[in-house]
Amino acid sequence: MKRFGFFAAMLLSAFVAEAQQAIFERHDTRSPQFNDDGTVTLRIKAPEAKKVMVVGDCIERGHGELRQQDGVWSYTTAQLPAELYSYRFYVDGVETQDAGNIERSRDVRSFMSTFIVSKEEGDKGWLYQNHNVEHGDVAHVWYDSPQLGLKRRMSIYTPPGYDKGKAYPVLYLLHGAGGDEEAWLTLGRTAQIMDNLIALGKAKPMIVVMPNGNASDDAGPLETGIRNKNWPKASYEESFSDVMNYVKKHYKTKKGADNTAICGLSMGGYHTFRISMLNPGTFGYMGLFSAAIRLGGRNQPKSVEQQFADNPEATAQMKALFDAKPRLYWIAIGKDDFLFQQNVELRSYLDKMQYPYEYYENGGGHIWRNWRIYLSMFAQRLF
Amino acid sequence: MKRFGFFAAMLLSAFVAEAQQAIFERHDTRSPQFNDDGTVTLRIKAPEAKKVMVVGDCIERGHGELRQQDGVWSYTTAQLPAELYSYRFYVDGVETQDAGNIERSRDVRSFMSTFIVSKEEGDKGWLYQNHNVEHGDVAHVWYDSPQLGLKRRMSIYTPPGYDKGKAYPVLYLLHGAGGDEEAWLTLGRTAQIMDNLIALGKAKPMIVVMPNGNASDDAGPLETGIRNKNWPKASYEESFSDVMNYVKKHYKTKKGADNTAICGLSMGGYHTFRISMLNPGTFGYMGLFSAAIRLGGRNQPKSVEQQFADNPEATAQMKALFDAKPRLYWIAIGKDDFLFQQNVELRSYLDKMQYPYEYYENGGGHIWRNWRIYLSMFAQRLF
Repeated sequence: MKRFGFFAAMLLSAFVAEAQQAIFERHDTRSPQFNDDGTVTLRIKAPEAKKVMVVGDCIERGHGELRQQDGVWSYTTAQLPAELYSYRFYVDGVETQDAGNIERSRDVRSFMSTFIVSKEEGDKGWLYQNHNVEHGDVAHVWYDSPQLGLKRRMSIYTPPGYDKGKAYPVLYLLHGAGGDEEAWLTLGRTAQIMDNLIALGKAKPMIVVMPNGNASDDAGPLETGIRNKNWPKASYEESFSDVMNYVKKHYKTKKGADNTAICGLSMGGYHTFRISMLNPGTFGYMGLFSAAIRLGGRNQPKSVEQQFADNPEATAQMKALFDAKPRLYWIAIGKDDFLFQQNVELRSYLDKMQYPYEYYENGGGHIWRNWRIYLSMFAQRLF
Repeated sequence: MKRFGFFAAMLLSAFVAEAQQAIFERHDTRSPQFNDDGTVTLRIKAPEAKKVMVVGDCIERGHGELRQQDGVWSYTTAQLPAELYSYRFYVDGVETQDAGNIERSRDVRSFMSTFIVSKEEGDKGWLYQNHNVEHGDVAHVWYDSPQLGLKRRMSIYTPPGYDKGKAYPVLYLLHGAGGDEEAWLTLGRTAQIMDNLIALGKAKPMIVVMPNGNASDDAGPLETGIRNKNWPKASYEESFSDVMNYVKKHYKTKKGADNTAICGLSMGGYHTFRISMLNPGTFGYMGLFSAAIRLGGRNQPKSVEQQFADNPEATAQMKALFDAKPRLYWIAIGKDDFLFQQNVELRSYLDKMQYPYEYYENGGGHIWRNWRIYLSMFAQRLF
C-alpha cells in the first residue's frame, strides 16, 4: 500500500493548509451501521439540536425520532429484509443527508441517502448491488429527434460481451413524470439489475435504452435542460421512432417484435401503453409498471372502457396490437398505488376484449421499490 | 403544455397520498438567487437554528455567517466573476446542502451545492455550462487490466460527430488521489469544457479518456469499489498500457505521439510525469496540473534534482522522453499550492538539463477551480 500511503500522507498535510481541496474529509460518526441482528443504526452528530427526525422507507411508519447521547443522535431500524432503502434526516426541521454515507440518490428534485441490505446471492438487495461479475457499459448519447426539434440525450446499457456478440435484443425502458434519462440508472439500479440477472443466467444479454420522456426537454436538469421553445408538433409517443431509429443505426440490434420490448413506470407506463398502440407488431413484450392509463384529452371522469368506446382509432390500434400476437402484455401495480383503479379498468377492458395479458400485484404504492421489482421480474421474461 | 399539465395534476394528487414517491417535492425558499448587481443570495429555512454558517469558494474568506429573518437565513455574496462555485451550509454545526438547489457535486466523500456564474459566451462559467451546441457522448466502459488483475471502469468522452469521422486524437485525463473515474466529469466539467471549446473552434475534436487511477480498485466507491485482494504486481503507471490498448482497440484513434496527449491533476499529475517517462515517444503533449513530483520510494527530503541524480534509470527515461521531441511539456500550478515547491524543483531540473517546457502559474491552491482552468488551457494547445 506504499503508493496510497505516500499520497494520503501528502494530501492529509494539505488538509491543514488553506486554499486546498479538502479531499480527505472524514466523518467520525459511523452511519449507517449494519448490526449483527439485521437492524441498521443511523447516526448524525448535532450537539445543539433539540429534535432530530428521520424519514425513509427503512423506518417503521415512514418516520421516527432519533435519540441523543453525547451530541450524537441515533436511530436503530427494525430488522430489515433485503432491499435498497432511502432516508434523510431533519435536524430541528432542516433537511439534511447523512454526512457519513457516500451513497445518495436524486429523484427529480429530492435527495436521499441510501443503503442496501442483502442476505444472500440473488435476493433483492444483491440484485441492486455491484458485484464482481461481468459488467455492461453505460453510454450517455445524444440523438437527433427531428419530430421534437431537439438533439436529445439518452442512456444506453450494453451487456457484457457486447463487443464480441453479433446482435442483441432491445428493451426500451421509460421513466416517470419529472424523471429523466438518469432515473432508471440511479434509484432504478438498471445496470446492476441487468449485470446481475445476466450473470445468474436469469436474463438474456440485451441492450437497454433509457430515453428522456419529457417531450419538450433535450435532457435532464443537470445536463442542458434546454426546452423546445415551441411546444413540439409531435407528442413523445409519436416521436418515439426517432429513438428507435438511432438505436437501430448505432447498435447491433436483433430485429423484429420477438427481439424488441418496451416498459416503463407511471408516465413511462402510459408511454408504453400508447407507444405500443401506435406501433402494433413492433414490440413483442410490453410492461406497464404502475402505469397511468388514459387515452389523452380531458377524459379524467370516464372509465377506460368508456374512453375506448368513444375512441374508434384507439380501439382499432389496440386490436391491431393484439392481432399481432405479442408474446407478453404485462401489467404490474401495487395495491396502494393511486393509479390502481385505472389498472383495474384496463384489465377489465382487456378481459372483455379477450386480449391476453399477465398481471402482477404486490403491496406498496407508487414507489421505486416496486419499479425495481417489476423491472427485475419483467427482464427475466424477455427474449 | 397539456401533457405535462396532465401528469403534473395527476401526480400532485399523489403527493398527498401515502406510500407514493414524493416526486414533485417543492422548496419554496429560493436559493441560489442571482441578483442584478452580480451578487448571489443563498438561503436556507431554519426557524429554530441559533447560528447558520456557509462555507465555500463563493464566500469571502471562505466562510460567512447568515442572517435570519422570519426563519429564513440568507447570505449575499460579493459580486462574483464568471466561475463554478461550491458551498454548503452548517446549521448549528450540522452540515447540509442547499435543499433549493438541485446542483450538487461529490468530491471523493465530500458533497457541495454548486452554481455557475457566466457573464458572456466563452468566459469560464460559460465553458462549464451546458449549452445548445453539438454534444459529445460519454461512456462508462469496463476494460480488462491483466497487469492489475481486475476488470476496471473508465469514462470516455467522444466528440460531436464521432460516428461520422474517420479517426480522432486521444487525450488521457487523470484524476487526483481519492478521486475516481467520475471526478473529471463532475467538478472537472470535462464534457462541457470539451463540447464548448470544440463548438467555439478553440479545441480540436478529440477522444478524452478518464480512467481510474487507484491501482487496487476496479471502480469508484459508488460503483463496485472492489479491491484487488493482493496489492497488484504492477503500479498504475506501469499498467497504463492496459488502458491504451483498450482505447486503441475499441475507438477510432489517430496514431502516434502527435495525436496522443496525457495530463492530470495532483496524483494524476504525478502519473503523467511517470507514465510519460515510462513511455518516451508515446505522448506528444504532457500536462502536469498541480502535480506531485517524486520518483517514488522514501525520498521525501530530497530535492527533485537529487532524486534524479540518485536514479540513473529515471534520468535516462527523462532523457529519452525529451530526445523524442514532444510538442509540449506543460506545467501549471497555483502560487498557494502545497506542491508548489516540488514544481519549482522540477522546473529547475528541466532548466538545468535544457529540456524545453512551458509554465503557467496563477493564484490559488490545490483546487478544482484551477484544474478546470488548466484543462481548458491545455485542451486548446492540443493536436
